[in-house]
Amino acid sequence: MMIHPVQIQELLKEALNEDLGWGDITTQALFPGFISAKGTIFPKEACVLAGGFVVKELFSILDRGITVTLHHEDGARVKKGELLMTFHGDGRTLLKGERVALNFLQRLSGIATLTSTFVKSVEGTKAKILDTRKTTPGLRLLERYAVYQGGGQNHRFHLGDAVLIKDNHITLKGGLKETLNAIRTGLKPFSLIEVEVKDKKEAMIALEGGADIILLDNMTPGKIKEAASLIGNRALIEASGGVNLDNVRAIAEAGVDYISIGALTHSARAIDMSMDIEPVRPVDRSIQRPEGTNR
Amino acid sequence: MMIHPVQIQELLKEALNEDLGWGDITTQALFPGFISAKGTIFPKEACVLAGGFVVKELFSILDRGITVTLHHEDGARVKKGELLMTFHGDGRTLLKGERVALNFLQRLSGIATLTSTFVKSVEGTKAKILDTRKTTPGLRLLERYAVYQGGGQNHRFHLGDAVLIKDNHITLKGGLKETLNAIRTGLKPFSLIEVEVKDKKEAMIALEGGADIILLDNMTPGKIKEAASLIGNRALIEASGGVNLDNVRAIAEAGVDYISIGALTHSARAIDMSMDIEPVRPVDRSIQRPEGTNR
Amino acid sequence: MMIHPVQIQELLKEALNEDLGWGDITTQALFPGFISAKGTIFPKEACVLAGGFVVKELFSILDRGITVTLHHEDGARVKKGELLMTFHGDGRTLLKGERVALNFLQRLSGIATLTSTFVKSVEGTKAKILDTRKTTPGLRLLERYAVYQGGGQNHRFHLGDAVLIKDNHITLKGGLKETLNAIRTGLKPFSLIEVEVKDKKEAMIALEGGADIILLDNMTPGKIKEAASLIGNRALIEASGGVNLDNVRAIAEAGVDYISIGALTHSARAIDMSMDIEPVRPVDRSIQRPEGTNR
Amino acid sequence: MMIHPVQIQELLKEALNEDLGWGDITTQALFPGFISAKGTIFPKEACVLAGGFVVKELFSILDRGITVTLHHEDGARVKKGELLMTFHGDGRTLLKGERVALNFLQRLSGIATLTSTFVKSVEGTKAKILDTRKTTPGLRLLERYAVYQGGGQNHRFHLGDAVLIKDNHITLKGGLKETLNAIRTGLKPFSLIEVEVKDKKEAMIALEGGADIILLDNMTPGKIKEAASLIGNRALIEASGGVNLDNVRAIAEAGVDYISIGALTHSARAIDMSMDIEPVRPVDRSIQRPEGTNR
Amino acid sequence: MMIHPVQIQELLKEALNEDLGWGDITTQALFPGFISAKGTIFPKEACVLAGGFVVKELFSILDRGITVTLHHEDGARVKKGELLMTFHGDGRTLLKGERVALNFLQRLSGIATLTSTFVKSVEGTKAKILDTRKTTPGLRLLERYAVYQGGGQNHRFHLGDAVLIKDNHITLKGGLKETLNAIRTGLKPFSLIEVEVKDKKEAMIALEGGADIILLDNMTPGKIKEAASLIGNRALIEASGGVNLDNVRAIAEAGVDYISIGALTHSARAIDMSMDIEPVRPVDRSIQRPEGTNR
Amino acid sequence: MMIHPVQIQELLKEALNEDLGWGDITTQALFPGFISAKGTIFPKEACVLAGGFVVKELFSILDRGITVTLHHEDGARVKKGELLMTFHGDGRTLLKGERVALNFLQRLSGIATLTSTFVKSVEGTKAKILDTRKTTPGLRLLERYAVYQGGGQNHRFHLGDAVLIKDNHITLKGGLKETLNAIRTGLKPFSLIEVEVKDKKEAMIALEGGADIILLDNMTPGKIKEAASLIGNRALIEASGGVNLDNVRAIAEAGVDYISIGALTHSARAIDMSMDIEPVRPVDRSIQRPEGTNR
Repeated sequence: MMIHPVQIQELLKEALNEDLGWGDITTQALFPGFISAKGTIFPKEACVLAGGFVVKELFSILDRGITVTLHHEDGARVKKGELLMTFHGDGRTLLKGERVALNFLQRLSGIATLTSTFVKSVEGTKAKILDTRKTTPGLRLLERYAVYQGGGQNHRFHLGDAVLIKDNHITLKGGLKETLNAIRTGLKPFSLIEVEVKDKKEAMIALEGGADIILLDNMTPGKIKEAASLIGNRALIEASGGVNLDNVRAIAEAGVDYISIGALTHSARAIDMSMDIEPVRPVDRSIQRPEGTNR
Repeated sequence: MMIHPVQIQELLKEALNEDLGWGDITTQALFPGFISAKGTIFPKEACVLAGGFVVKELFSILDRGITVTLHHEDGARVKKGELLMTFHGDGRTLLKGERVALNFLQRLSGIATLTSTFVKSVEGTKAKILDTRKTTPGLRLLERYAVYQGGGQNHRFHLGDAVLIKDNHITLKGGLKETLNAIRTGLKPFSLIEVEVKDKKEAMIALEGGADIILLDNMTPGKIKEAASLIGNRALIEASGGVNLDNVRAIAEAGVDYISIGALTHSARAIDMSMDIEPVRPVDRSIQRPEGTNR
Repeated sequence: MMIHPVQIQELLKEALNEDLGWGDITTQALFPGFISAKGTIFPKEACVLAGGFVVKELFSILDRGITVTLHHEDGARVKKGELLMTFHGDGRTLLKGERVALNFLQRLSGIATLTSTFVKSVEGTKAKILDTRKTTPGLRLLERYAVYQGGGQNHRFHLGDAVLIKDNHITLKGGLKETLNAIRTGLKPFSLIEVEVKDKKEAMIALEGGADIILLDNMTPGKIKEAASLIGNRALIEASGGVNLDNVRAIAEAGVDYISIGALTHSARAIDMSMDIEPVRPVDRSIQRPEGTNR
Repeated sequence: MMIHPVQIQELLKEALNEDLGWGDITTQALFPGFISAKGTIFPKEACVLAGGFVVKELFSILDRGITVTLHHEDGARVKKGELLMTFHGDGRTLLKGERVALNFLQRLSGIATLTSTFVKSVEGTKAKILDTRKTTPGLRLLERYAVYQGGGQNHRFHLGDAVLIKDNHITLKGGLKETLNAIRTGLKPFSLIEVEVKDKKEAMIALEGGADIILLDNMTPGKIKEAASLIGNRALIEASGGVNLDNVRAIAEAGVDYISIGALTHSARAIDMSMDIEPVRPVDRSIQRPEGTNR
Repeated sequence: MMIHPVQIQELLKEALNEDLGWGDITTQALFPGFISAKGTIFPKEACVLAGGFVVKELFSILDRGITVTLHHEDGARVKKGELLMTFHGDGRTLLKGERVALNFLQRLSGIATLTSTFVKSVEGTKAKILDTRKTTPGLRLLERYAVYQGGGQNHRFHLGDAVLIKDNHITLKGGLKETLNAIRTGLKPFSLIEVEVKDKKEAMIALEGGADIILLDNMTPGKIKEAASLIGNRALIEASGGVNLDNVRAIAEAGVDYISIGALTHSARAIDMSMDIEPVRPVDRSIQRPEGTNR
Repeated sequence: MMIHPVQIQELLKEALNEDLGWGDITTQALFPGFISAKGTIFPKEACVLAGGFVVKELFSILDRGITVTLHHEDGARVKKGELLMTFHGDGRTLLKGERVALNFLQRLSGIATLTSTFVKSVEGTKAKILDTRKTTPGLRLLERYAVYQGGGQNHRFHLGDAVLIKDNHITLKGGLKETLNAIRTGLKPFSLIEVEVKDKKEAMIALEGGADIILLDNMTPGKIKEAASLIGNRALIEASGGVNLDNVRAIAEAGVDYISIGALTHSARAIDMSMDIEPVRPVDRSIQRPEGTNR
């Protein structure tokens, strides 16, 4: 997926207003006028970058006089200390946007990096890593973009995007079979039906009831393998619940098509990043003579 | 701090719209009409609760017919599996609000719980745990509320709230002394001045330059202790940078007044929580006979 | 699809503010205080109803003292003059909300009715009637809800919802084959690919290039039939462009799965409806005696 | 009337976000980088143009690098296939804005064209064509602009803009005379009073009651003529209700000053338009040799 | 004019959020739970009340448990110390809303009171007191409501509401005659034309040029009288510029129809008002016995 | 304090929309196309300027083709008639922005000027002039900026910014001592406590109860002096209530640290200012010959 700046401008303005408050009083006290400066952002640890275009748009909202150069595209794997972005312009603007820029960049890169680690762990299997609806309120679009940049895929975006029958639906309806019967009569044609089950018995009921995707919830790799071989090619298989870096490969090798992981968006650790700002002295042309000239 | 519902209503409406999308098609297909239901939320691990009032307001926005009972106040330490909230009303509304409610509750309780762990680690010392401006864009008010419920205190809310001279200011201004001289002439009276320093030498310059609070950045407990004893009572001392559960007590014992920790808000792991929804059958009065009647 | 009131409240408030302007000066001049009134809405022509819940929410925003009774559900086929809704409460509020309520109701019922006419025209064939992205800016959710209530189905909601290769993509890319090759390498797995073609030759290229759905654009029923029999079951077939009530059945019988029609939302005629408001006199109990009592 | 871009920017951003959704996945998959392109818009039927400045502002919001040339002013009568606008810039942006641009342009031109047809029908009479408050919620400003561009005039914009006594006011107040008495004491001086009547008898009561404008509602041309000659020059006369292209001239010739028509805005058919996008190949300068060089 | 609550709810929420900030920390520290309280608002000086319904809506937004009683209608002349409103409910809510409520009430009553003083000063003449577009950004609707409650009338609400030719138009167009010629060809029929002039000579040109209303700008009562008698009944006459309580009667007696005064909204002094909050002790029913009962 | 344009853009857009309404019909009728113009703003009375950057941002929102030159910085003391700003560009845009620009500039300069007069009145004493929370709803940030530019200082921005115990808190809590005891246990460490008292007796209780700042409310200079000498250096002293230009120096000389004045923001008279707009004739180069050329 790819986000157009117009889709995040309101969010960026809100974030800036949240951090500017009554104005940046430190910068105001120190720098009464324009101060030519250069800023650089680099990570303090290796990571997968996500959010570069967000930072670019952020500074464009603050001050069109700031030039931003992105040295890596989103989705790139960068090393500790590698130069990510360079800024030129009024140092006071850089100081005002620094924290908000890093807040976006660290969080999104954190999500992309964690996703990428999971994706690597299942390399060679058919399993794809998916996100969930467990995103930060207000940031779903950006967080899913970060998952995508980390090599993951996006599950349904919201409740209208796909049918997913979960335990609460089944309890309220009075049983899995009843639920599947009801959904097939209530639903429009050509909709895929995904059903969450907690063991292979339920999986079989779901399969017979017409499920297109079966979500094995909170099952061990062993149980998943059993269920998966019973299901075979008759439905797509997704595993979810309690997935971590220790067990994700085993789950993938158990034969699932998808593994969805809430932690990608609700518990990713932010990547540590810094922005350095330094003055750019105007060039003193009187001393820029070629070596060896005699004057 | 305490948040009034009117301060978060817009955020909650946005979060609901983000998750409702084109409508909850699963619920619509299954339940054509009102279905009387009871919902319960409980944590799958021990935690410090934060966000109960958010969930209450959220369901009140969705449907005034839902009654919400909070069994614990925000800030309470609750055990795994303990009942946190009970809901009664239309099961379809509970299904629609479930994910957004949990997204808020899991995140805020995660922050409160992590904060509380840090607060416990420094118990008995004079050090207070502070948050930073490293919050999720758009959620600063709620995340700082969670830090407060976890026993932490709130650092400056935004750039207008207090003066804090950081390395980038000093570099741009051309040195610590120059910066301190400039700030004292540029600032209104009665403002406190906080200065970030990276060693005891700078700390002494800051002290002589009139700093009221000295922020020791990224220093070891040993270095902090040296700096702290040099500073003594002449300024408040804050430590920051690289603080974790392994070193926080040592830092506290090194004699600082405050320890500020970005991870509280940018890297807290969400608490795992569930919402169970079950039907509430209307009472069958034909079998409700008084004791002692002849059956 | 089903829309929750929280999803349209902002829209309703904007619509009310747009029409209230500097206040309803006619009503203010005539009625200084509360006037007990009853309102009724009925159509001046037979139609399929859509938007009842919108009107209910609208009056709830204006004045919680208004009671609204919906006599028909959205999607119902109603006759000319049949009672649709009854309102009780302050007549001044009914006068203030009347026009906005009707503006929503007439437009949405117009869309539902037109959709329903197309749906009826293809009854007995396998063809489903679809909407398009040719909706009124700001009203897509409601207009698609109206299509759904009229018996139609919803095509992709927005540019992120599905892949659809149109003539402009092909021209920019330099040919249909090139485009299909590029899309297959650029796209994530499990995405369906829909391709717009203008004759059977292109349809065959699309089919060989891996299209899952082939959109026959602006072709006659005869040409559609030829293309459809060539395609067979190897892809889903959608027809679009120049569809009207005169040719829709022929198109359906030509063997397509879907017929998408922009006119459903961009050119539906509003259903003529009226709201009557009359005073409700307080009951004079002194004259309400049973017949024949002697006083 | 004339609309300044600042008045529609929010609406345009909402419309773009509504259509962009999770990003234009087709364009993203096909074109990884900038692709130089030219776009052209032309109508598939003759029409009166309205909304050119809207399209220009729309693309300026998406991408300041797009140049837009309007070949006709709003209000111009254009032929089928005539070139309306030309765009140059990134083809990906043209693809992203195409549908929203056309949605505005087709609707507004539809309204202007329908208005213009009515205006032509009454040419030579004194009657002016007016719009009503029966506009699409959220689009009143733009739709009335389209009516104006089609040669119509604007009736009151909202409930605060003028006094108009309608049947519901009269019923609630208990009679036409009572209403007129009440309005004259309740109203500030210098306000014009318009009264809706359903026959010549009511028209006379309205006239005696001091109405400045008399709105003849749902009357035949014959009845209108009778009423109009009774009223003479003592009040302005407006006709409304059931007006269509078949009867509008007869109504105009019956001697009214204004004819107001809800269908202008609630039932105008969208004008069919297309946007063509083609690549602009960079000039190959190696073959651009001056005439007469030796080949 | 009369404002519906839905027209000011966004403004009230913004005002509350502006004042609540990070929560009312004083109230939170003092009152951990509900405290039953009574609040009263009274003016510290005689005034004309405006804004009662604003305060009522404000507390309804904060807490539906607060009951608000308005003892006077907007527009009432009240004495110093007279009871204006009574509130019952949670004392903590009263403390949170107090300042915002008074900020609205003091400002609007200040405008109504100043307007009323001007209106009284011209009593017995035909002159009406008008407001101008010199209102506080964002508050025009409420400020004009206050002018209306003070007995004034409302001039055009905005630039689209009426034609008013001012000195800058004339200068840009190259002369008064040229301007009047241009406006008559550019304007739609039935629009009134108001022209600002600075002496009687210009007034005559305006009159001959077809002005319906002539605005005598910054002229002395003597000059106004001369101009007014030259104009006679051929146009409405408005005076503006430099109007104050010392000269307003003389201007009115010079024979003008309207006097417009920017100071009504841009320089009205706020009325001093207070809100008193006191606890309401729960009634101890054990001691509420009728006198003389036997214990 | 210093405000970044991003913090006021929404407010400016709202203000423009409020004044543009249905478009500037006068300007539209007079000037069909671009008209090159120069605008100038100057005050009709001496004042302290505030709001220049607001006007600059306002015109940049309307039309990027307008160039704005500010001849004085905010905070400058300017004379009657002195040139404040010059504008070049489309005269139609200048006409559209004129009123909103002046509405901001006149109000903010009014506040800055009144503040400056108070500041001058206490020159030579230690007293600082403070604003209050008695600001115009929605404009607090800008109004406090104006106070700052007038030489005043800013009191707490909102209820979350500092603790201030007022009479209503004390009444609700049941006494000053009880309140101070409660606040000290309820409050986080390092918070300053300000207490409002109405005589020296209460001042002493507040002092003993641990107040850091004592607010002497509505006391005469004589009473203030007595209280101030009793308090001495043990707390900061603020005076408020009934402060005006006649008594402010006496209050300052009574020995207070701060004087807070609601009138600065709720009752400042707007500064009278004008914007002149004149055409800029294109230079006729044919007559621009160097002096002394022979024709």
